[in-house]
Amino acid sequence: MEPGTVRIAVDLLGGDDAPAVVVDGALRALGADPDLFLLLVGPPEVADGLVAMLRPADRDRVAVRPVRDAAAMTADPATLARADSTVSAAVAAVCEEAADAVVSAGSTAATVTAAVLGFGRWPGVRRPALVATLPALTGPVALLDVGGSLEARPATLARHAVLGAAYAAVTHGLVRPRVGLLSIGTEPGKGDRARRAADPTLVEQPLPAGAHYVGLVEGYDVATGARADVVVTDGFTGNVLLKGIEGAYAMAGGPPASGGAPRAAALLGVAGTVVVCHGAARDDDVASGIALAAHLHRRRAVPAISAVLAGLNGTSHITDTEVTA
Amino acid sequence: MEPGTVRIAVDLLGGDDAPAVVVDGALRALGADPDLFLLLVGPPEVADGLVAMLRPADRDRVAVRPVRDAAAMTADPATLARADSTVSAAVAAVCEEAADAVVSAGSTAATVTAAVLGFGRWPGVRRPALVATLPALTGPVALLDVGGSLEARPATLARHAVLGAAYAAVTHGLVRPRVGLLSIGTEPGKGDRARRAADPTLVEQPLPAGAHYVGLVEGYDVATGARADVVVTDGFTGNVLLKGIEGAYAMAGGPPASGGAPRAAALLGVAGTVVVCHGAARDDDVASGIALAAHLHRRRAVPAISAVLAGLNGTSHITDTEVTA
Repeated sequence: MEPGTVRIAVDLLGGDDAPAVVVDGALRALGADPDLFLLLVGPPEVADGLVAMLRPADRDRVAVRPVRDAAAMTADPATLARADSTVSAAVAAVCEEAADAVVSAGSTAATVTAAVLGFGRWPGVRRPALVATLPALTGPVALLDVGGSLEARPATLARHAVLGAAYAAVTHGLVRPRVGLLSIGTEPGKGDRARRAADPTLVEQPLPAGAHYVGLVEGYDVATGARADVVVTDGFTGNVLLKGIEGAYAMAGGPPASGGAPRAAALLGVAGTVVVCHGAARDDDVASGIALAAHLHRRRAVPAISAVLAGLNGTSHITDTEVTA
Repeated sequence: MEPGTVRIAVDLLGGDDAPAVVVDGALRALGADPDLFLLLVGPPEVADGLVAMLRPADRDRVAVRPVRDAAAMTADPATLARADSTVSAAVAAVCEEAADAVVSAGSTAATVTAAVLGFGRWPGVRRPALVATLPALTGPVALLDVGGSLEARPATLARHAVLGAAYAAVTHGLVRPRVGLLSIGTEPGKGDRARRAADPTLVEQPLPAGAHYVGLVEGYDVATGARADVVVTDGFTGNVLLKGIEGAYAMAGGPPASGGAPRAAALLGVAGTVVVCHGAARDDDVASGIALAAHLHRRRAVPAISAVLAGLNGTSHITDTEVTA
């Protein structure tokens, strides 16, 4: 546990089993981290029920922002952007400096939309990415995107390589991280049309923090970490892979001692700290999402990554500014 | 072991570590199956070395077709279609009824091309699929495509659903198999553009063998088998997922007792029995690929699947006949 008070805005209504698992996860997180404060964003009766379960001495570690409606599970951007949803209110709380970071297990699309509208995107980032950290043999592997941006465009993959390298340097403390592009073989030319187009783009892409592009890697390498510290892919493939690794650990009787597939991911590319939990999160997943958000805030990860990227911007000649079809 | 003599044409030069691992795998396969005969396709000195390692009584179980060159690891179709490569010669041996099935750990693209040219495609199939069988909690899960056809087109996914349902019925003995489309959530509308287009196509697609479409499934479900017996995806995503599950089992200290991720897959959609092994196959992977080919031939899987599909053809109104961009 790193020291330092941190205040996390928690979306009480996000997730398949909300609010029950969110309440249980919040209680776990408070029990594990004495310097953690929570801003509970959701129906006041749910928040009051949580407060009632705390020891009196801990009750001043919890504040409540009453909001009635969860973000809808919908693909409609106008609905997603509703300012009165719990996740939008959680983002607003951070903008008002009433909290340091946002955690939600609700719709990823709604959380990304609320974060983009509330925090704004970093320069050059059109599509924020969700980055998941897998504990591999040789150290952590950052896999991105795992669901923020679903289509595989070369410029997006190149931008995500930059974001992932900066993330690995700042949050995993890696010097000269190895960056790979996920494909179906390691020889140049392996992959679908999107990967064949992205590989030469990544060869040319300047990377921050002394990172270097190692070329194509495979699904196996994401689990084991053998070839790369940062693995870049589209959010569709990354999400499928992450859940497949999770299923394999379930089949194998549990994850290795180094840890299993994460069920929380950090949003990269917006000017605020946001953690998205698996929609099917259990209470310990919510607690680990809150712990990740606290860790990122204590490391000052978002401003540190932003500074790393600003150092690169003079040399970067590729930005993720394609027009959406 | 099912009874019945079977003759497998083995590509001695296919695979990253060929011919050594192919020779070792062939020896293993011969030792495990007394009714197995092999036609070794490759350099005669390699084949002769293998024969010299056999007991004299077993030497008449092996024949040799001398071929000098492996198929090139290239994306150039003209090069892939070279008739004098080992994999093309193995296909030709089956066409001449000198063997019953082909096994190669060489370039998937070269094997698919050789099989399409030599055996021809089934009616309505433009893009053959590789199907891998994962041992899940509730029985085997057929995952396709795992590398035959890399782009996600709705008509291809619909045709592969038909092929996978017929394969599960014939080779896994499943009655009314459940067919799912791999995506990033189970609610309708989840996924990238290709999945959102394919889901309604699959709802309308008549399936053989009493199969029914259960909608969207996730990576987790492929490992555990919880939602579907047949999982349809594009060959890029399927290949990444399969190798990710394999990596997770390696990390977890080994696969579950029910078995790990397969390292051999059957080619579906051509009028012949073809098994493709992982390019990084070890000797036991090659042996299990030979065993799979023998099993498929003994089950008369290819003619049986073809008959199942012929029964459907009066009602099918979607065929995989899109034009390649």
